[in-house]
Amino acid sequence: MMNFDFSNLYLVKPSCELDKECYSRAMHASSIVENAKIFDSFEKMIEDLDFLVATSSVATKSEKKHLRKAVLVEDFSKKILEIEGKIGLIFGREDFGLYNSEIEKCDLLVKIPTSEKYPSLNLSHAACIVLYNLYLSLKTPSLKTGRKINRLEKEKLFEFLSSILDEIDYPDHKRKNTMIMLRRILGRAMPSKWEYHTLMGILSKTMEKLKNK
Amino acid sequence: MMNFDFSNLYLVKPSCELDKECYSRAMHASSIVENAKIFDSFEKMIEDLDFLVATSSVATKSEKKHLRKAVLVEDFSKKILEIEGKIGLIFGREDFGLYNSEIEKCDLLVKIPTSEKYPSLNLSHAACIVLYNLYLSLKTPSLKTGRKINRLEKEKLFEFLSSILDEIDYPDHKRKNTMIMLRRILGRAMPSKWEYHTLMGILSKTMEKLKNK
Repeated sequence: MMNFDFSNLYLVKPSCELDKECYSRAMHASSIVENAKIFDSFEKMIEDLDFLVATSSVATKSEKKHLRKAVLVEDFSKKILEIEGKIGLIFGREDFGLYNSEIEKCDLLVKIPTSEKYPSLNLSHAACIVLYNLYLSLKTPSLKTGRKINRLEKEKLFEFLSSILDEIDYPDHKRKNTMIMLRRILGRAMPSKWEYHTLMGILSKTMEKLKNK
Repeated sequence: MMNFDFSNLYLVKPSCELDKECYSRAMHASSIVENAKIFDSFEKMIEDLDFLVATSSVATKSEKKHLRKAVLVEDFSKKILEIEGKIGLIFGREDFGLYNSEIEKCDLLVKIPTSEKYPSLNLSHAACIVLYNLYLSLKTPSLKTGRKINRLEKEKLFEFLSSILDEIDYPDHKRKNTMIMLRRILGRAMPSKWEYHTLMGILSKTMEKLKNK
């Protein structure tokens, strides 16, 4: 993290103590360990974050599975400056990675390209590659385009989309997957405040009409 | 190494045995350890290599010091295919890196960009980033993600969106700008074929309901 100018480490239920060995391995970056925040659940950890990025070296090839559909880490890195608010880069367990229930809550799934013969990176290498890519992008600032929507606005947008699905009797069994897809599409597009208000305008008018049918 | 399709490991005077712990840490890549060649000098190791690439995260800023003048790993990676023969990527000791006398023998010094505050990567991370970059350059064509929608599909999507605006009596004076905005949002998100069909499903059900009001 310190090699690439990152400093805020959040840990969810770490399986070992941050003991002497941990500090000695951290070498000159022990301040990051010292200031690490520890949470007892994933939900509490994400509370103060605006944009959640799950990471994986195993994505899906199936067009149908929105949950594990990913953007490549290089492409994500180029867009990082467009994201407003506090971004959380989420890395899974050394052995099992992230659970689907965790990936579901994220705005984007970022994939690190790896060999098909041995796709799973260890945690430390996965973090290293993601942070390296972000470091490169942040050091060479590109054009920043408008302020992006925050977490609250985003959730409100999804609530509206969800109630439109209700209104059009969208099939239950497709619903979850479709909501994840909408989250991914908007995660990639990263709407600005202005776009958000226009989208909400369209959605609320549509809702109104649908209810008066 | 196996995560990025590399397989030939050369070790010069390794300071520890390739013991049980070594194999257990290698996980599914133990074949690389098994086939590693061990040399008792740097000179012998480079004998069968055609092009030597030293790696470092510490380069020089001085124009005069050619020895530590480096190319960035991204730039080197793009040129890798132009190099003829057997290439050796040379990583230094965990603690001291490469000596000048070793770097001198190399054809190129490649630098991994890192924070000025803490430039030295550990050996494993340095190798990881170099191999990741080379993997990208060597594999890029096969990494393409899902088929994107074509022009016709895109236009059909916008037609649908446009007729929904009709249906909800969207104000004329805002209309053109809003359609451009929708185009921009979808242009950034670049929907796949599958996402397109799901979106069209939602829109056509919405249209149907709006018309039956």
